[in-house]
Amino acid sequence: MGSKPLIGIDLGGTKTAVAAITQDGRILARTQLPTGGHGSAEAFMAALVARVREVLAGAEPAAIGIGASGPLDLARGTIHNPYTLPLPDGTDIVTPFRQAFAVPVALENDADAAALGEHWRGAAQGYELAVCLTFGTGVGGGVVLKGRVFRGAGGVHPEIGHMPVDPSGPECYCGVRGCLEAMASGTAIGQAGLEAAQGRSGAALLSLAGGRAEMVRAEHVFAAARAGDAAAGEIIGRAVRAAADAVFGLVHTLAPDAMVLGGGVMRHYDLFEPAVRDALKRCVLVPGSGVLLAPAQLGNDAGVLGAARAAALLLQQQG
Amino acid sequence: MGSKPLIGIDLGGTKTAVAAITQDGRILARTQLPTGGHGSAEAFMAALVARVREVLAGAEPAAIGIGASGPLDLARGTIHNPYTLPLPDGTDIVTPFRQAFAVPVALENDADAAALGEHWRGAAQGYELAVCLTFGTGVGGGVVLKGRVFRGAGGVHPEIGHMPVDPSGPECYCGVRGCLEAMASGTAIGQAGLEAAQGRSGAALLSLAGGRAEMVRAEHVFAAARAGDAAAGEIIGRAVRAAADAVFGLVHTLAPDAMVLGGGVMRHYDLFEPAVRDALKRCVLVPGSGVLLAPAQLGNDAGVLGAARAAALLLQQQG
Repeated sequence: MGSKPLIGIDLGGTKTAVAAITQDGRILARTQLPTGGHGSAEAFMAALVARVREVLAGAEPAAIGIGASGPLDLARGTIHNPYTLPLPDGTDIVTPFRQAFAVPVALENDADAAALGEHWRGAAQGYELAVCLTFGTGVGGGVVLKGRVFRGAGGVHPEIGHMPVDPSGPECYCGVRGCLEAMASGTAIGQAGLEAAQGRSGAALLSLAGGRAEMVRAEHVFAAARAGDAAAGEIIGRAVRAAADAVFGLVHTLAPDAMVLGGGVMRHYDLFEPAVRDALKRCVLVPGSGVLLAPAQLGNDAGVLGAARAAALLLQQQG
Repeated sequence: MGSKPLIGIDLGGTKTAVAAITQDGRILARTQLPTGGHGSAEAFMAALVARVREVLAGAEPAAIGIGASGPLDLARGTIHNPYTLPLPDGTDIVTPFRQAFAVPVALENDADAAALGEHWRGAAQGYELAVCLTFGTGVGGGVVLKGRVFRGAGGVHPEIGHMPVDPSGPECYCGVRGCLEAMASGTAIGQAGLEAAQGRSGAALLSLAGGRAEMVRAEHVFAAARAGDAAAGEIIGRAVRAAADAVFGLVHTLAPDAMVLGGGVMRHYDLFEPAVRDALKRCVLVPGSGVLLAPAQLGNDAGVLGAARAAALLLQQQG
């Protein structure tokens, strides 16, 4: 049992990554497939099962873990995200694997899977309460407490990326103005850049986007800010302050000993790090100066590693 | 053993309440003493032990619990709050009780004790993850998860009353601008009222405070706001919005199923309730509409009841 590989699956809006992983966290083989374009959920699941067999290369899996962007029904093993996943609301992602392989199958929110991955093999190894924020299209967050995913009442996944930080910020679909995601996600930075490019102060941004304001992306805003453009600098400054305030808030609500920042936006970790470290230093009632602050280490592998870790924890729990 | 009373002690800045409490949470006898004016920590502890003997009326205690305003060193049983407690930094509050009664002695942060009390005998009974906020001089917060105090890494007490909600708000000693306490504590409301009374728009407030701006208290601001005064209404409106945003943030970071609001400010629960309920309804990613929202039920008894509950939990754990 101990030598059988785990399977980790990272189910994203565009592609789904699949890996066979040793029980101590070494990736043996990996592959991926597009999440969309399969015609039906059944066809997608059949293709996914085939990719799992491919990375197994004839071995039997010990257990299978799937990280997927929520909302999820963890108890029923179903996906309820027709917004960013090309899969119908209610798709049963767990049963086809149970039927094909007759092993335990764990389903996790993708942000929790990434946090488990960083805690197992990445930046947060050995920490008691690790908060992992992933700044990408949105801002996902996962909390690992004593090696397990922290959940709220009824096993609900908190959405720490939507904590409000600035009531004067943009409205978010989450129901509040100026949550972290609305201020510091790649989407928010890109949108603010687009708006700036349409105005008088946005000439540098407009030029970086080939003269088309609607083509402004977060990367253009970072590039313009690094080149000294004031409008872009202000947008990035606002995102950085939001991240720092969110970290201050998370220290006061969760009292973590590790804070890990990942996702595409954190390719610019160097721009965020000073303000976030300063926020930690300012935490005196809940001491923040001893909290680890680190960039995520595993990049895109956090998802498959964390999913595999969820599978291993389920295995432990069941047996 | 099961019939011996628990002792609950609520150690505050001005007075210390002491109660003998049955193991199912009925208060048998209570007394109190001033916290200050005893000349030394030893004299205070001796007086406190005498009051415990008084409420015991000859019975032996099963265990003793103390709730005190932090910072505390829970492992060492010492108090480190020379700011609001008239006791020297490092006072050992636990050993004198262990020596006098030879029973287990639990020490809790007072906000956590209040939360345990509300979960044991008050508004949050039976809830899986209860967040209790106490709006008084400051804003204290305690989280009870599956019947136990939720703590962060290293057993640290989070300070959820200091989550930032508005970067344009007043600076707080906690290290950030516009945390919940800086916006919605009795002190913050009183201070904003005082400042308004010194300005042109504060005539109504000034009059309520007998013509002396420096005498304006939170109660004056509430009274003026209820009488329709615009300046006071704005201050209360800001406090209400801060509370609503904090609740929104706490739902997204902790995913509770109960939110209990207490403390002196919540004598005006009716003014806070609509906006906080609206914030819960707006929580869609982490569903908020099913979260209990309720005023604290136990008033000043939450402290002694919660301290007794902490003692009972320690007893369970030890044997």
